Amino acid sequence: MSAMLTSFDARTAEVLGELAPTPPAAVDAAAEAAAAAFAAWQASSGAQRAALLRGLADGLEAARETLVPLADRETALGPVRLNGELDRTAFQLRRFASLAESGVPFAFTDDPAVAGAPPVGHPAMQRVQVPLGPVAMFSASNFPFAFSVLGGDTASALAAGCPVVVKAHSGHLLLSQAVFGIVQQVLAAQGLPAGLIGLVQGGGRDVGVRLVRHPAIAAGAFTGSTQGGAALAAEAAARPRPIPFYGELGSVNPVIALPAELAANGATLATTLAGSITLGCGQFCTNPGVIVLIDQLQPGLDAKAVNDAFVAQLAEALKTQNPHAMLTQAMRAGFEGGVAHWAEAGASFLVREQAAAGQPPRPVLAQVSALDFNARAALREEVFGPSSLIVRAASVAQALQVLQAVGGSLTVTVWGAQAEGDDVRALVRGAMAIAGRVLFAGVPTGVAVSAGQQHGGPWPSSSRPETTSVGDAALGRFLRPVCLQDAPAWLTARQGQPL
Amino acid sequence: MSAMLTSFDARTAEVLGELAPTPPAAVDAAAEAAAAAFAAWQASSGAQRAALLRGLADGLEAARETLVPLADRETALGPVRLNGELDRTAFQLRRFASLAESGVPFAFTDDPAVAGAPPVGHPAMQRVQVPLGPVAMFSASNFPFAFSVLGGDTASALAAGCPVVVKAHSGHLLLSQAVFGIVQQVLAAQGLPAGLIGLVQGGGRDVGVRLVRHPAIAAGAFTGSTQGGAALAAEAAARPRPIPFYGELGSVNPVIALPAELAANGATLATTLAGSITLGCGQFCTNPGVIVLIDQLQPGLDAKAVNDAFVAQLAEALKTQNPHAMLTQAMRAGFEGGVAHWAEAGASFLVREQAAAGQPPRPVLAQVSALDFNARAALREEVFGPSSLIVRAASVAQALQVLQAVGGSLTVTVWGAQAEGDDVRALVRGAMAIAGRVLFAGVPTGVAVSAGQQHGGPWPSSSRPETTSVGDAALGRFLRPVCLQDAPAWLTARQGQPL
Repeated sequence: MSAMLTSFDARTAEVLGELAPTPPAAVDAAAEAAAAAFAAWQASSGAQRAALLRGLADGLEAARETLVPLADRETALGPVRLNGELDRTAFQLRRFASLAESGVPFAFTDDPAVAGAPPVGHPAMQRVQVPLGPVAMFSASNFPFAFSVLGGDTASALAAGCPVVVKAHSGHLLLSQAVFGIVQQVLAAQGLPAGLIGLVQGGGRDVGVRLVRHPAIAAGAFTGSTQGGAALAAEAAARPRPIPFYGELGSVNPVIALPAELAANGATLATTLAGSITLGCGQFCTNPGVIVLIDQLQPGLDAKAVNDAFVAQLAEALKTQNPHAMLTQAMRAGFEGGVAHWAEAGASFLVREQAAAGQPPRPVLAQVSALDFNARAALREEVFGPSSLIVRAASVAQALQVLQAVGGSLTVTVWGAQAEGDDVRALVRGAMAIAGRVLFAGVPTGVAVSAGQQHGGPWPSSSRPETTSVGDAALGRFLRPVCLQDAPAWLTARQGQPL
Repeated sequence: MSAMLTSFDARTAEVLGELAPTPPAAVDAAAEAAAAAFAAWQASSGAQRAALLRGLADGLEAARETLVPLADRETALGPVRLNGELDRTAFQLRRFASLAESGVPFAFTDDPAVAGAPPVGHPAMQRVQVPLGPVAMFSASNFPFAFSVLGGDTASALAAGCPVVVKAHSGHLLLSQAVFGIVQQVLAAQGLPAGLIGLVQGGGRDVGVRLVRHPAIAAGAFTGSTQGGAALAAEAAARPRPIPFYGELGSVNPVIALPAELAANGATLATTLAGSITLGCGQFCTNPGVIVLIDQLQPGLDAKAVNDAFVAQLAEALKTQNPHAMLTQAMRAGFEGGVAHWAEAGASFLVREQAAAGQPPRPVLAQVSALDFNARAALREEVFGPSSLIVRAASVAQALQVLQAVGGSLTVTVWGAQAEGDDVRALVRGAMAIAGRVLFAGVPTGVAVSAGQQHGGPWPSSSRPETTSVGDAALGRFLRPVCLQDAPAWLTARQGQPL
């Protein structure tokens, strides 16, 4: 018998409850129930899928008064943020409902026959989209609603026609149970099989690995650390039948601030950036973890002095921030360890206050040269928490090397690119080469659920940078094309509607 | 120093030439030259890409009189087929030229700002497509033009804005050299860097593995055996920075022939099918390797008698076929070994003639029950060559189990699905669940280069069934999306044009 799983109050470490890990046979049963549910769900209409997704959104909202306080105790994220996140989660479920109903993601390519010999002539073809099958979904710690049981992965998979088996995050076990209770009620009320959405839980890796290895599972979706995601992605690839594994992983999210922009708006940007660095105690995958300043960009400007002034402003702004408690004690330890790694790797600290005993962490700001950053891998690791590392580049070329050293990131932000020019173009190109999203104003925290969103960048920020885990295109991860050649009229008349 | 590589006459085993394997440093140099060429090529216009692709097509056609005889000596595929394949290859290059010029594959999603607080409000976003980077391309044995140096993978990668390093197939080394000579001339004539298209060669796995592991390589594209592709896909996944690996692998391509259809058109279908089984000596990835006959479908028809008659017709038609020599001696040995495995696994043979010494292989037709097929993995392995295995199912349910046992295939063909009904719908659904392309007339050999094509099915037929290696959508394999948030006017005005 495996050790019990414990739910803790994130602020006080008080034990809120205990749960048994899902036994291996029950993990298998969840995957098999999902496979059984797939037979009918893959053929469900857009209207049916929309009804389920809207029912789940309604259920979440109706239980707000019990869910938010529970989430707050388990995560310490606070009621304002958690109410907003619940709104976002319901919005997301309803957005995928509308998408499924619209039929747009299932649009087919009609390719009528062309007379004559190949290569010009060809038979009639209709290219349609079909769902992959049951999805193993791994919840994130830092979004207990939006990237958890009823988060974007679940919503987009259900909208695509795929059942889901959720692996609950051990950081919010009781909330996951409560949300799953709503799921079961909604499924029952709509006459849908209970196996359409399953829930498993476990400490360590056993339960997750068993789920990913199960033959009935057709895809994985994950939000979390690069290390954890890479381990599960390797399991997915090593199966007798490999499956796609969509991992949204770690990211340092460089912000490149050009001196002229800082000269004009440094004080405001420093305040904005300090807020972004400490938002949710820095526990965002889009947290701006690296700030690149270029000390010799414009001859008419004393770039170094401007950058020094901005650094001082940012340090002051950070000191006024009071982050809340971290999600778990393990994350707090990881944060302290990451900051210590920076110190060992030679970073100099501009802000590094000792937190009082039992209190949340204090913000951290450190600084290194671009040459050191590029030379020392330890400086490029994501430090999950309210911290950022300033990287001082002597030139645009050196700043580009910093981006290359980062290699892959969910976002890169470029402040000061309003006017086109060779340097600006080079920086934007360098940013686009390593990021899924390039911002030209504002801060990377905050990921809109929208048609244009791309939440997924080159490795190590995601395992499938050609896909997104947020926004309308997330649905496409769970579909694959099938060409119907010389199909009979009864089939082509379905126009891509599931069979 | 590694052993020399030898080019053989496929019919006589005469040595046509020897080549040194590419030394490790030269493999690295090819990858680095591709990376250097990427800087400019990723920003090339559609017109520039089209000019290169059309120049390559023209160059191929102009050298037809030397290339086809050389290809014929190295592959034994015959001048008719090889001329047709060269036509197809030129057609494909020009089709991707037109696609690149049209801009359609690079279409952006415009997502204007929406006022208000999240989740409804959001900043302006433009979602554009950017090329991945240098592609390692592994040529196939069986299409020395269309899936080789200037084949579909090369054409689609170049059209996407990606340089290519081709690993020549050891079955047509001299042809690869000759085509690469044309490539170099065209690149020089257009003032493009020689590194934009590179060529390496090697026996064994060393050269290919070194290429896939090179840090500058951003994606792999492969056509060949499941075993070879899986090994390279594992290398791609195990890199410090994993890369996508698009492997078009082995496939048994089941043909389900319903009794009523055979009762009406059995003789014609037997002749057509015999031609498909032996086309190109059976060396097609879409070769129909499994024929599923259902002995108890329609009460009003003696299905078993109809099927028996069809089997006899097919056997007779096969005996009249005279396949040409196989591509290589290793493939001939593989074919004989695969047929021997069928025998060991209990298949009974309907056609199995001994070829005369030094002569091409004779067609093979064997038969098993569905129960045996489903129980014995050896019966489900692809036998690359002029052979097919008849699987006799007692019911539609058993036929569906046969499809599930196959698991994944480039194609499934269903003959007799013109009228909708429960059984037909179940079979079509079962076919769509395991195939990238489902045909309702004709034979699976012959893969049109077209907008509706899907050449890639569930594992083991491809490593990325959400993508295709043939047809317009192949280009998308080498792109990933980037969201530009609050982008300046000079950038959004580019409307997704490369920067």
